[in-house]
Amino acid sequence: AIKDPRVMAENGLRDKVLSLDSMNPWVKRVEYAVRGPVLVRAVELEEELRQGVKKPFTEVIKANIGDAHAMASAPSPSCCQVHQGPGLDPGLGEQGLRVRSEGHRQSCGGGSPGLGEQGLRVRTQVTPGPCPLCAAPAHPSLSPQTMLKLLVSGEGQSRTGVMIPIPQYPLYSAGIAELNAVQVNYYLDEEHCWALDVGELRRALRQARGHCQPRVLCIINPGNPTGTTGAGNGTGAFVLQGAPAPIQTHVYAEGVRVPYSFKERSFEMAHYSQSPSLHLSPPRCGLRGGYMEVVNLDPAVQQQLSKLVSVRLCPPVPGQVLLDVVMNPPKPGEPSYQSFIREKQAVLSDLAHKAQLTQEIFSQVPGIHCNPVQGAMYSFPRIQIPARAVQEAQVRGFAPDMFFCLQLLEETGICVVPGSGFGEREGTYHFRMTILPHVEKLRIVLKKLSQFYAKFIQEYS
Amino acid sequence: AIKDPRVMAENGLRDKVLSLDSMNPWVKRVEYAVRGPVLVRAVELEEELRQGVKKPFTEVIKANIGDAHAMASAPSPSCCQVHQGPGLDPGLGEQGLRVRSEGHRQSCGGGSPGLGEQGLRVRTQVTPGPCPLCAAPAHPSLSPQTMLKLLVSGEGQSRTGVMIPIPQYPLYSAGIAELNAVQVNYYLDEEHCWALDVGELRRALRQARGHCQPRVLCIINPGNPTGTTGAGNGTGAFVLQGAPAPIQTHVYAEGVRVPYSFKERSFEMAHYSQSPSLHLSPPRCGLRGGYMEVVNLDPAVQQQLSKLVSVRLCPPVPGQVLLDVVMNPPKPGEPSYQSFIREKQAVLSDLAHKAQLTQEIFSQVPGIHCNPVQGAMYSFPRIQIPARAVQEAQVRGFAPDMFFCLQLLEETGICVVPGSGFGEREGTYHFRMTILPHVEKLRIVLKKLSQFYAKFIQEYS
Repeated sequence: AIKDPRVMAENGLRDKVLSLDSMNPWVKRVEYAVRGPVLVRAVELEEELRQGVKKPFTEVIKANIGDAHAMASAPSPSCCQVHQGPGLDPGLGEQGLRVRSEGHRQSCGGGSPGLGEQGLRVRTQVTPGPCPLCAAPAHPSLSPQTMLKLLVSGEGQSRTGVMIPIPQYPLYSAGIAELNAVQVNYYLDEEHCWALDVGELRRALRQARGHCQPRVLCIINPGNPTGTTGAGNGTGAFVLQGAPAPIQTHVYAEGVRVPYSFKERSFEMAHYSQSPSLHLSPPRCGLRGGYMEVVNLDPAVQQQLSKLVSVRLCPPVPGQVLLDVVMNPPKPGEPSYQSFIREKQAVLSDLAHKAQLTQEIFSQVPGIHCNPVQGAMYSFPRIQIPARAVQEAQVRGFAPDMFFCLQLLEETGICVVPGSGFGEREGTYHFRMTILPHVEKLRIVLKKLSQFYAKFIQEYS
Repeated sequence: AIKDPRVMAENGLRDKVLSLDSMNPWVKRVEYAVRGPVLVRAVELEEELRQGVKKPFTEVIKANIGDAHAMASAPSPSCCQVHQGPGLDPGLGEQGLRVRSEGHRQSCGGGSPGLGEQGLRVRTQVTPGPCPLCAAPAHPSLSPQTMLKLLVSGEGQSRTGVMIPIPQYPLYSAGIAELNAVQVNYYLDEEHCWALDVGELRRALRQARGHCQPRVLCIINPGNPTGTTGAGNGTGAFVLQGAPAPIQTHVYAEGVRVPYSFKERSFEMAHYSQSPSLHLSPPRCGLRGGYMEVVNLDPAVQQQLSKLVSVRLCPPVPGQVLLDVVMNPPKPGEPSYQSFIREKQAVLSDLAHKAQLTQEIFSQVPGIHCNPVQGAMYSFPRIQIPARAVQEAQVRGFAPDMFFCLQLLEETGICVVPGSGFGEREGTYHFRMTILPHVEKLRIVLKKLSQFYAKFIQEYS
């Protein structure tokens, strides 16, 4: 029966205004495993520990995301903001940063056009060209979604298809679901260190053309969750041969072990092929600075992009200041140069050591396969799960690796993310774990996890 | 002719991948005047001044947005971040804030569930209830759009209608356009200090029912751009009588002159009527902290909202720390209490003085009508524009008040936002101007603007 709200109101009744049935159906399809059930349970367990509930562990270790500051594996800008009027307190901070901050204060001067500070935009101008958005500071978590918004159109078979790697970071699949675009999977090659294979790209493109219009190729490099940096040979050729564009990359400033950036390469290709190409930087932990860089975009579309970005607020000022330092690190002779180099080398060599340690320890465990960790801050080991455990998972309504991760959490307090949240080849199982904990803690986590895995295998064999 | 991309590729051709024709049509419909052509021109003029081009003014005054820090009318957290390792430098900041910062450091501890710091969420829990999202820190510029995403569904006559005030802040109309929802205008009553009139709400609702399904009522309070705080009588009754919900409010923590908040009232109504209701706080300038509070939301939809929020990153840590201070200001006896009260009173009395000054000076100018500025940081005067100027604007393809604002900028360097960007009754013209400049500068701006207006009237009469 149709309920007339006016009649209901007269009778003192109200229909439920917003329910699962009446809400936006595309939002319901969004999935985001990085902050899914395992983390929810981890937070509950922390609360139980606080209340004195007895557990087989004394601490929950959140290895699910790569927050370098929370893990205290990188020098962190304090979360203390200094409260003061105009002019900087001369006792604060390093000289180099103070000089820049003063510059920022002067370039702020009221009313940014929503694209971030003018001064900063000039300083981060890394790609020459007419594009006013090049290297504009951007809310990093918004950038992929903003680009997708521009690109999604059509209905039925002409609906925009978006090619994403499997495994992928679920920000992409969530964005695609929210916009009701068509997700087109291409599989990374786990046997070759998660390389991007051009034959596989062609296969995915060919098959997708039957039911959508593929227009976007997303490349995540260094890989998240895979932690690798190689782009694979032949990608350039693929991009030139009538494949979808723009390329959407997701690049960290520094690899952990392999100093390789896909960014330069994608721009070379884009300049050559005349495809629009976009480079997105990741968020800077806790301060939310980031930027996007575009080349070859139609100027009229560029205007639309500027408009869309400016409807949102520009990133927080401290994040923009940070980004300036990231894009223009101290040069030899500048006040902070020595400490910058010292810290940077310490961080990178620490990460390289932890990456090595992770691969070594996991490789000793029968049933675990762990590729080298080259970039990002994650390992993404493949685990065999016995048939009986798969059945048990099905009975409980979980993906097999979700089941494994929940069991791991309950027994060890270690919180990692199931591979199914990122996508994986049918019948393979993985988890993503950050390598960021202090090296001694990391060693303990890796050992506990390996021991638990062996026990799990035994229990379900 | 249909272009086959494979054939084109074989011939070495590429279709333009992304053009105005092939992009998302809904994005093209988005408009956002606050950062529109007037500001673009203002930035150009600044550059021309820097290059030594002679102008009838020496400085561009951006009175288009209300950035209290850029205008230096409020004590500002410095844009300098203090770089340090674990542990706080004891020489930094006020004792009260340092104590809190230490608490935040402890409650951060790795892996927030994307809804912001757990500790902070507990501390900002202002509304009792089972809702885990109550007072969750949120990206303030994302919150209205996130709520709209949940509520938009249906096609044709069942497409969700969203009631917004006219004039409105264009974040709402932009969000509606992007989601292809139906914008339903209700007009605020300028003759009664921009009051919200329940008869007008009923009219708008009745008419909208013919072509969409109105499900959302947005209330912006204190008004932006109108700068007023009164909600009008009868709103409560309207909400109870089968009108759309949730109520979406946009509330600043403190009014300028009238200490009235619509928030408490809307929650009272929502609790009574069982409608979901949402309260959004505005962004904190430069630090991007904010929160959303919901009541009466279906728990299943609540979960969907949590998921949608957690796909995005939580707000920057400094913004969350700031929010803690905003929600839990220093209490008598605490280290920072005295300075907090002193600063707060100074800021509020300064704003009240400027609000008064603005109304006084504009009221002396024939052709300008300026309501009292009660809240927010804006005045929104109505201006008469002579018929000849309206014609001239039409010839040049501008809305009449856009034409006025561009002329004002060229001759005086003062940058304000045309009323047409916020919506206004047919045949009326306005502009929005922040009242935040230092009082002596504000006096000069108001006088220059009034003089220019008198000259403009004379020129086109």
